[in-house]
Amino acid sequence: MSFANGSSMRFGVNYTPRQGWFHSWLDFDPARVRDDFQAIRSLGADHVRIFPLWPLLQPNRSLIRARGIEDVATTVAIAGECELDASVDVLQGHLSSFDFLPSWVSTWHRRNIFTDADVVGAEAELVRALATALRDLPNATGLTLGNEFIQFAAPRHPDRDVIDSDEAGAWLDTLLAAAGDTWPRGTHVLSHDDDIWFDDAHPFTPEHAVTRGAMTTVHSWVFGKVGPHYGRNAEELAWFARYLCEVADAWGDGERPVWLQEIGAPDNFVDAERAAQFLTDTVSILMGERGGGVSPNLTAITWWCSHDVSRELADFPALEHTLGLIDSDGRVKPIGEAFADAVKRWGGEAIVPTSSNRPTQTVSEEMSASRRSILAADTEFFDRWYQRSRAGEVAAIAMCHPVNREEEAAARHVLAHTT
Amino acid sequence: MSFANGSSMRFGVNYTPRQGWFHSWLDFDPARVRDDFQAIRSLGADHVRIFPLWPLLQPNRSLIRARGIEDVATTVAIAGECELDASVDVLQGHLSSFDFLPSWVSTWHRRNIFTDADVVGAEAELVRALATALRDLPNATGLTLGNEFIQFAAPRHPDRDVIDSDEAGAWLDTLLAAAGDTWPRGTHVLSHDDDIWFDDAHPFTPEHAVTRGAMTTVHSWVFGKVGPHYGRNAEELAWFARYLCEVADAWGDGERPVWLQEIGAPDNFVDAERAAQFLTDTVSILMGERGGGVSPNLTAITWWCSHDVSRELADFPALEHTLGLIDSDGRVKPIGEAFADAVKRWGGEAIVPTSSNRPTQTVSEEMSASRRSILAADTEFFDRWYQRSRAGEVAAIAMCHPVNREEEAAARHVLAHTT
Repeated sequence: MSFANGSSMRFGVNYTPRQGWFHSWLDFDPARVRDDFQAIRSLGADHVRIFPLWPLLQPNRSLIRARGIEDVATTVAIAGECELDASVDVLQGHLSSFDFLPSWVSTWHRRNIFTDADVVGAEAELVRALATALRDLPNATGLTLGNEFIQFAAPRHPDRDVIDSDEAGAWLDTLLAAAGDTWPRGTHVLSHDDDIWFDDAHPFTPEHAVTRGAMTTVHSWVFGKVGPHYGRNAEELAWFARYLCEVADAWGDGERPVWLQEIGAPDNFVDAERAAQFLTDTVSILMGERGGGVSPNLTAITWWCSHDVSRELADFPALEHTLGLIDSDGRVKPIGEAFADAVKRWGGEAIVPTSSNRPTQTVSEEMSASRRSILAADTEFFDRWYQRSRAGEVAAIAMCHPVNREEEAAARHVLAHTT
Repeated sequence: MSFANGSSMRFGVNYTPRQGWFHSWLDFDPARVRDDFQAIRSLGADHVRIFPLWPLLQPNRSLIRARGIEDVATTVAIAGECELDASVDVLQGHLSSFDFLPSWVSTWHRRNIFTDADVVGAEAELVRALATALRDLPNATGLTLGNEFIQFAAPRHPDRDVIDSDEAGAWLDTLLAAAGDTWPRGTHVLSHDDDIWFDDAHPFTPEHAVTRGAMTTVHSWVFGKVGPHYGRNAEELAWFARYLCEVADAWGDGERPVWLQEIGAPDNFVDAERAAQFLTDTVSILMGERGGGVSPNLTAITWWCSHDVSRELADFPALEHTLGLIDSDGRVKPIGEAFADAVKRWGGEAIVPTSSNRPTQTVSEEMSASRRSILAADTEFFDRWYQRSRAGEVAAIAMCHPVNREEEAAARHVLAHTT
């Protein structure tokens, strides 16, 4: 697959194995994977996102397990047999509140996982190993560096690595170069939560999001700010994914593809019986059904997630047990049917272009990474955007930001890395 | 096997898999285990100590992997086929500088692994699961709670859990009860580095060492204090294991069995070409060859370790690559031959009883856990013990310590736990 822009919207799901969650890598069973992928395909999804665990692939800095890599490749191949394209996140890293860090970067061996040369070298080796194993599989689309890996540098992380934005950019350049050099035709991206758009102090910046990798990725979670601000089941919540995509487009060059890589219906802010409607509303707004045309440059919508986390597993945030389109017994849930309906409604249809004459809401203050929180979902800016968008066409977002200066900085990173 | 006292000394090794170190659990291969155990048996060893990895056995708090437990049981069974008894450490936990903690007690899920009721409950579940799987294997001897697990509460640990001695005792009681209730005939013990004997601030105390579990265990590592104090290849180094065993006996009731569970020749303080002699000297002194009879109540000597860690693996302290009796290509090293010779010399022979009239060196000050460092290996006390022991019979150690009061405290722990 390619994420080529302009033909029709891609719909996929983030794959959470029905049995054993991601711990199922420890007891890899191709038959179970096939069952899960057939269930996913039966909903109309055309792609999956796959998450190996870092400590299992690379338990020692210099040991990449051949069988671990092979299990990932087998998983992608099975996806292909089920008519699903597949992308793979390399460094997990972080999944559903749990961190998975190998022992060689923990406690006595604590090292900065973004700047330590040995660590980053090993990460790049793992990127190359997966790229090599996957690049010839016809349904493999590319690598994501790691699921929301930037959390490990987030001010809110309980054991974060302190880095600056130059170091963040250098890390991205090193790993994306490893992916691109090894697998030139792959669509390789950075993955991040919305801290990158809204946390003034985060070393990973909107410029990184819109200049590194083949696409800009967006993860939309209403439990961040929009849910707490507007409350459970508020109408605003179904607009948040579109808003994030508009923000992503506003930071970019107006042409760069956007991948809504994660969007889900967490039951702490969306009641279970409203989850299906939340999905339908969210997709409808993204596709421009309410006016304004499709979210600009949006190429794919990847729902989180395929399967509920079994309640037999402990310590998950409660909401993680109900995020699936399919429950942990394998039954399609109402939200799964809503997903299938959305694919039928919008998946095969030529995308309605973004309105060329829709209104634009401009950020009045000068914008920079250190002021990015002025766009957060608990601000007057979001509120105004929501009010005008729901009343007419979805508003574009425009800002005055120092793209040129930061592009120069980005260019320096690349030079520093390649010379 | 039992560790029955008085017949002949048991000699064994700590099993470090030749290929892939403990990461080999991820690619469990019974044939490789068998090869390793045959090599170990060919040195004359009669037992092995086995180390699964906690995050692989119990990747989620409520998920104990059946196949993980089965792999451990298979390993013990293979040991039996190779005429080796086997004990298993449950919570690793810590191995050769690396910590292996599951994600459900790390970073966002950080919880006290000694006092959090849910965590301790899960640890006890794992103890019971292993006890159940192993108790009917004729060569299985018992469980060790976890290799030097007390390090996670050590003042020197970079991310320690702060607990007090009562909490340490309660944790021991809970886990040892889980082991004993499930596997009454097993020999279950606590395992600890020598911080327990010498670090005044450590919440695990000598009383814990000599009152909890079926035996007192001793780990003898000259890189702690005796090596840095006396220097590389100093004569004192070969006396350190005996000294530790005497200290353990002095804290105890004079009858409790002592298991020298770890003793090794680290090349930062013992030159490679002297390692074999270091082994011979250490065992000779323990067996009372230099006068004084066998170390009191000593029942087993378990060398660390079977196989060198391959130099293909990164980030180990350099000394870990040369601790094996067998190198990473499978060749028996001179120290391995010295081990085989020691087994021939002392393994089948009735133990020469500890001299009843040997000299005693008494601690002149009142002893307590908070003053335990007065016995450390860089003190005048050790130096005097060494000087007199090498000149004549090995001196016993006696101390005036508040055993009664602390036994009462121990009894309170048990009551608190069982009521």
